[in-house]
Amino acid sequence: MCIITLTTDFGVSDWFAGTMKGAILNIQPRAQIVDITHSIPAGDVRAGAFALAASYEFFSRKTIHVAIVDPGVGGKRRALVVQTADYLFVGPDNGVLSFALAGERIKSIHQLTNARFFLTPISGTFHGRDVFAPVAAHLSKGRSPHLLGPKLSDLVRLPWPKPQRDGSGIRGEIVYIDRFGNAITGIKREHFPEFADVRCDVFVRRKRLCPLVAFYQAVRPGKPAAVFGSSGFLEIAVNGGSAAECHKLAVGDAITVRPASRHSQSSSS
Amino acid sequence: MCIITLTTDFGVSDWFAGTMKGAILNIQPRAQIVDITHSIPAGDVRAGAFALAASYEFFSRKTIHVAIVDPGVGGKRRALVVQTADYLFVGPDNGVLSFALAGERIKSIHQLTNARFFLTPISGTFHGRDVFAPVAAHLSKGRSPHLLGPKLSDLVRLPWPKPQRDGSGIRGEIVYIDRFGNAITGIKREHFPEFADVRCDVFVRRKRLCPLVAFYQAVRPGKPAAVFGSSGFLEIAVNGGSAAECHKLAVGDAITVRPASRHSQSSSS
Amino acid sequence: MCIITLTTDFGVSDWFAGTMKGAILNIQPRAQIVDITHSIPAGDVRAGAFALAASYEFFSRKTIHVAIVDPGVGGKRRALVVQTADYLFVGPDNGVLSFALAGERIKSIHQLTNARFFLTPISGTFHGRDVFAPVAAHLSKGRSPHLLGPKLSDLVRLPWPKPQRDGSGIRGEIVYIDRFGNAITGIKREHFPEFADVRCDVFVRRKRLCPLVAFYQAVRPGKPAAVFGSSGFLEIAVNGGSAAECHKLAVGDAITVRPASRHSQSSSS
Repeated sequence: MCIITLTTDFGVSDWFAGTMKGAILNIQPRAQIVDITHSIPAGDVRAGAFALAASYEFFSRKTIHVAIVDPGVGGKRRALVVQTADYLFVGPDNGVLSFALAGERIKSIHQLTNARFFLTPISGTFHGRDVFAPVAAHLSKGRSPHLLGPKLSDLVRLPWPKPQRDGSGIRGEIVYIDRFGNAITGIKREHFPEFADVRCDVFVRRKRLCPLVAFYQAVRPGKPAAVFGSSGFLEIAVNGGSAAECHKLAVGDAITVRPASRHSQSSSS
Repeated sequence: MCIITLTTDFGVSDWFAGTMKGAILNIQPRAQIVDITHSIPAGDVRAGAFALAASYEFFSRKTIHVAIVDPGVGGKRRALVVQTADYLFVGPDNGVLSFALAGERIKSIHQLTNARFFLTPISGTFHGRDVFAPVAAHLSKGRSPHLLGPKLSDLVRLPWPKPQRDGSGIRGEIVYIDRFGNAITGIKREHFPEFADVRCDVFVRRKRLCPLVAFYQAVRPGKPAAVFGSSGFLEIAVNGGSAAECHKLAVGDAITVRPASRHSQSSSS
Repeated sequence: MCIITLTTDFGVSDWFAGTMKGAILNIQPRAQIVDITHSIPAGDVRAGAFALAASYEFFSRKTIHVAIVDPGVGGKRRALVVQTADYLFVGPDNGVLSFALAGERIKSIHQLTNARFFLTPISGTFHGRDVFAPVAAHLSKGRSPHLLGPKLSDLVRLPWPKPQRDGSGIRGEIVYIDRFGNAITGIKREHFPEFADVRCDVFVRRKRLCPLVAFYQAVRPGKPAAVFGSSGFLEIAVNGGSAAECHKLAVGDAITVRPASRHSQSSSS
């Protein structure tokens, strides 16, 4: 049994994702293919990188993670396979793998150049089907990454908005809005261990928005709350609603977490 | 071979459904996971209950049906596994399982409390991944429901809009609008056996809308028709169009079926 | 291992596609079911035919391709299984199979009439679940198509907009817009072999729009380009954008390819 996951911006309205699966199963009929998502906004490499980072480690060892958000397809960007202790990652070298790899020890990086493992002829526009799918299938059959092309020393990494000290608090930014309208930031609990037992408030655009609580229902329906979400990141939610809509939150907005003042504590719930 | 179905409001734009599958396959690599749908409107427990009720019995015996529309996640609502003669049902105790269970003889209900079968740490927001997915996987490996927590005597049930006598007819209401714009009611043929061989008309908001026919094409293109749909419920469709759009139909609208008067018969097709 | 692909307009918001899978797995628990897409626009037989034609040949031999865009369900249209050298195709006889079959040598066509292979009772509205899914499952178990119903001599074929000579060029039309806004035409390279080594321009509504290049990035970001896409068809794209939106392209628009004049060459990139 070998699991191959797919994270792409191919959408589900056309035949692209399905055709990739045909190309995989042609080579490896026993692949267990799991869609992470095919609905990354077209060309949004950063959203694809975040989706992969939020999900990859819930899969068993030896899973092959394929991530394709590839606006440079057919051009000069390189294609990669990256080996870590537990996984193989396959995708274009534009940063889409980099958020997941930030948390992993990299054992090797190889460029995909050996056309023997590609479909022929290779189209100029659909390397998901013609390069990445067959490569993932061959890897799942035990082919070594070094057969696929030359070894590289590093890969393109997207800048991650690292949380910063800001007076008494921590400042980060919104990196993803999910389908529920939850605004996910790049702030993790480990970024402010000294606040672990302290009540905190969350500020957006310098105005206090909501308290940091353990779960959505700690605030009344319709009210905003900040929680540590399922991927470990601080997110702003509205109990029973969309935080992004209700409070006009967008990717890139600055978010600050501060120990609650006495005043805000008395009005927070 | 064990089938696990998923009915959720997690959407397909983020990584939530895919991550659940990772959590299942981690424990049960041989699971055959089938998406019923992940596009239940966010938090719409009743729509999720209807989707499960309309589909569950087309799966083979021993299928494990997981339904998660869970606006109360992280709060006080209970989590359940329900055993019937043919299936296991897993989900939050908020009614999402109740329409399907209305048609089944329940053998046991257990609350999910034994954290040994959960992912650790459990997030406050994603019990689909951390509770329901691993529980379903353990059940598919043959673990008995009674290992998962205490036995319960009942579960939360959503009110089902039961069709009522209304003069010479039957009155029900629209319970679901599907992607074709068909308006599905809670009325089944068994609710008015005496009409089986009688021509009938369907009224919306007290005005006659269309005849009850055997299939959409019995009326001209663009015209409305009522048929017994694929799940056994009376639904209003437009031949080649969207009944919900053309006739402004919405969930909750009252629908009445009456034997056709001579006048309506002469003008019905 | 037997692969069954699904191309439908059932959408992913309701339970229709999932229920079909239940009906397949009931009969053939070992089926590997692959979604090509369920998001063909409702009732758009031609779009379904194109999606199937663009994807079917990337699947291994013996794959069973099921395509259901079926506005005539429950009426008089026939249901078919078509056998070719490599594949079986299953669907309604309304043209949805015809673009894929245009490239295949047909070995036999059988009408689906033998109710022994259907679910009972058959609904009037959901033959995907009640007819096509069980038939595909039985075929995957090795049942011969001739058991399913009488042999037919031909099937309904949709007209394909064949590229035509137009002065010094080739005129075709847009047949599909994909999720990236790429406008895919019915023109293949084999339609104008004499242009293989000649620089060409593409005209829309008699105005020059863009050069024909090898890949999107041959033009500057935001600029239009014509390329031979992944299914072999000429398509108009915008580097980093949506050609359909930027240039108001729609299915049915006439497209002409001509050898580049000296003037257009000097201004083309």
